[in-house]
Amino acid sequence: MAALIPTHKSILDYAFYPRSVAVVGASDQPLSAGYHFLKHLLDLGFAGDIYAVNPKKDSILGVKAYPGLKNVPAEVDLVICCVSTDRVLPLLDECKLKNVKVVHLFTARLGETGRPQAVELERQIKDSADRLGINLIGPNCMGIYCPESKITFGYDMPAEPGNIGVVFQSGGAAGLLVQDGALLGLRFSKVLSYGNALQIDESDILDYLANDPKTGIIAAYFEGVRDGKKFMRSLKRAAQSKPVIAIKGGRGKSGVRAVASHTAAIAGATDIWDTAFEQAGVMQARDIDEMMDLLCLFNALPPIEGNRVGIIGGGGGKCIIAADLAEEAGLSVPPLSSQVREKLKGIVPALWDWLGNPVDFSIWGDDADKAMQVRQLISDSPDFDFLITQISDDNPLGIEWWTAIIRMAVDDIISVHKGKTKPVIAVLSSARPGYADLVNVRWRTISEQRSRLVAEKVPTFDTMADAVRALAKYVKYWERKRYNP
Amino acid sequence: MAALIPTHKSILDYAFYPRSVAVVGASDQPLSAGYHFLKHLLDLGFAGDIYAVNPKKDSILGVKAYPGLKNVPAEVDLVICCVSTDRVLPLLDECKLKNVKVVHLFTARLGETGRPQAVELERQIKDSADRLGINLIGPNCMGIYCPESKITFGYDMPAEPGNIGVVFQSGGAAGLLVQDGALLGLRFSKVLSYGNALQIDESDILDYLANDPKTGIIAAYFEGVRDGKKFMRSLKRAAQSKPVIAIKGGRGKSGVRAVASHTAAIAGATDIWDTAFEQAGVMQARDIDEMMDLLCLFNALPPIEGNRVGIIGGGGGKCIIAADLAEEAGLSVPPLSSQVREKLKGIVPALWDWLGNPVDFSIWGDDADKAMQVRQLISDSPDFDFLITQISDDNPLGIEWWTAIIRMAVDDIISVHKGKTKPVIAVLSSARPGYADLVNVRWRTISEQRSRLVAEKVPTFDTMADAVRALAKYVKYWERKRYNP
Repeated sequence: MAALIPTHKSILDYAFYPRSVAVVGASDQPLSAGYHFLKHLLDLGFAGDIYAVNPKKDSILGVKAYPGLKNVPAEVDLVICCVSTDRVLPLLDECKLKNVKVVHLFTARLGETGRPQAVELERQIKDSADRLGINLIGPNCMGIYCPESKITFGYDMPAEPGNIGVVFQSGGAAGLLVQDGALLGLRFSKVLSYGNALQIDESDILDYLANDPKTGIIAAYFEGVRDGKKFMRSLKRAAQSKPVIAIKGGRGKSGVRAVASHTAAIAGATDIWDTAFEQAGVMQARDIDEMMDLLCLFNALPPIEGNRVGIIGGGGGKCIIAADLAEEAGLSVPPLSSQVREKLKGIVPALWDWLGNPVDFSIWGDDADKAMQVRQLISDSPDFDFLITQISDDNPLGIEWWTAIIRMAVDDIISVHKGKTKPVIAVLSSARPGYADLVNVRWRTISEQRSRLVAEKVPTFDTMADAVRALAKYVKYWERKRYNP
Repeated sequence: MAALIPTHKSILDYAFYPRSVAVVGASDQPLSAGYHFLKHLLDLGFAGDIYAVNPKKDSILGVKAYPGLKNVPAEVDLVICCVSTDRVLPLLDECKLKNVKVVHLFTARLGETGRPQAVELERQIKDSADRLGINLIGPNCMGIYCPESKITFGYDMPAEPGNIGVVFQSGGAAGLLVQDGALLGLRFSKVLSYGNALQIDESDILDYLANDPKTGIIAAYFEGVRDGKKFMRSLKRAAQSKPVIAIKGGRGKSGVRAVASHTAAIAGATDIWDTAFEQAGVMQARDIDEMMDLLCLFNALPPIEGNRVGIIGGGGGKCIIAADLAEEAGLSVPPLSSQVREKLKGIVPALWDWLGNPVDFSIWGDDADKAMQVRQLISDSPDFDFLITQISDDNPLGIEWWTAIIRMAVDDIISVHKGKTKPVIAVLSSARPGYADLVNVRWRTISEQRSRLVAEKVPTFDTMADAVRALAKYVKYWERKRYNP
């Protein structure tokens, strides 16, 4: 048995770092969950012992299969349960025999159906686990992703670990966060989707992530809580120790209805949740996209100590709209100071009095060298707390020159980012090419340069509106932190 | 001379359908505007006569060059002026000799610099044009794109015409709208970027587009107006005749500063603009992205007569967030009626009482046939005014099955769209792959399916938040229209 950590201090240590895993209901049918959970352990290369349980097979995906959990020839730390609801109670008794610490119940169609029989069965499952001393994750959830120990519940989830810890009541949404976030350079320490939260609940997971040295930021999605007091304690403690970004699912009438049939949670009044997040110092995101935007900032930038933004690049109209959006989001777009203007004289002698913030790059045509010098000048100025650079995709030049200028602009943004004189954020383009459009070098170039920015960990947004909304929240977070350290 | 329309009734007819064009300041230098304007006419295949004017060359890009406009051996309808400011006044005198109707002054660095000498020269240019009876577009603008007559000011702008008319004070922003919009299937009748609006102004262009039978929708970007009364009259008339979507550039302090140095316009108080748009029945967009979203709806959908949305597809968390966003945007997400539930019994006998609106497709696993039947059922129901379909990219299946299911979902959405039983909108994915990510079949599939949806004119959004924001404005537009026909 390969122990990944020497001591298991918390019950969730057994979930994230089990020495052995049994997939109960393992299958060779690729439309079955028991197939995927087993395949994920093999694909990612889980280092501990893996057991398949299926009464009809001798081996599955090359793993020896046992007719029942009781037939497995060793103790088992984690059971991933993919069998139907009627087989859960007998399984729990077998778990006791094998000294199982944690059972992840992927099994669904219990409390969330709202049907009396299923609700009663769910109650019996909880009672039995309580009595037997077994800890349940779920039911009705995707469970665990921990790249460090090579456990996962989805495809296209990075094998490389990162510092984002995730506690999500919805497994599909957690999967989207990991898969889509990976494209933006986000990497994760531990992800737990906890579904109906019969035993291990959002508070337990928050406590764990708050204490986890591998987790630097927490992303959360809640539909409801069972114990409000316990939750508030855990939420405050977590937000005290690291940035917490949360989505409340079920804010409106129809969302509340949907919550009931999704995880049987009681959604609660939206203003109570707003107050709870506000009091705890938790940033609220309205959806997964906004959550990813915020995570990109926390992932790549130092704290920002003020709201004064220097906006550079883009043509006239694009700059004006950018300034409007920035102010509407609560940022400040100060004019260029006389010190900056004095230095501009040396770079663009004919334009020093005319340029402003935002710096409209179309004014001096297409001199990339001047663009670089101005970008560096704004970056060095104490008048700004951070920079937003817009790529000049409204440049009217022919495609060869256009391509060259975009590439140089991205080189330059990466170099300012690496120089760390000031936090820099890129707005690349809101063009939405389909695959068929990528034969066109314009769209392929934007797509290629996006890859480069992400690889260099420059926070990169499609639109100015998304960028300033996220930045305004980021700045506010650090401001609050200064006054409530 | 190839007359594209038999009679030129309005002065702007000469701008959009000139019989002959002279590019003054034509050049063979690919960093020069005089190169690009000439090249565009040749590339797109302008059918009238083309003259290049350059005192140092005999021919440019294969077009015979004349030392001065006065040497051109025929009358000229449209002059595209790319020479520097000091050469504009003498050029206007030559224009008179050639009976020029419209001069597009690409030439910039006049009033917008704020410098007294340049402001005075701009005044002299206006006086001279007034005296000579010549009509100016600009200065400081990109000018004309009219795919029907094959005139354009940018690369990657479709040769195929459409029904969107564009009046934009900023040429770069107009170019972005055309180029990025083309990826979403938007096509344009006429685009005019008018810059400093010395003579032909936003009101003239609005009047023209309002009367233009080729224009079905108007997109506008204003920084300021010179004659408020004339503007309100034109704006109301235009919005009475067809949908008008407008961005006001320069809403905040820094935006107002930027407007002054961009087109020398006086931005005016934001609340006056808000009231003007409201009174005229003009939809306001905050940026080009939102404008494109709205144009996609007007471009592809019939009027929507109510705000009741059926949301189908996506897993549990995704559905809950979708419902929240829809209600927060002002849409209604009604529960399933007993009639719909009765019919669901026949399709999903084990789930008819449990499914809701949003319809969480993850509940019944991955039976694509059932998904199709449910989508059609919701589409046929009189309980909903329109549908939003989320592609199930949170589906946890292996990549072959996942790909097949995404393709079937898109097939099905296209078929509902073609059946026209109900307006249908797709939310494809908010994944933002770079070029390097497209080797992965997951991201390539999303990118391919986006191309298919766009080709079939299904309005397709990256995020639910964008979709519901645009739809709420679209529904409100038609509601107002019903009460103010």
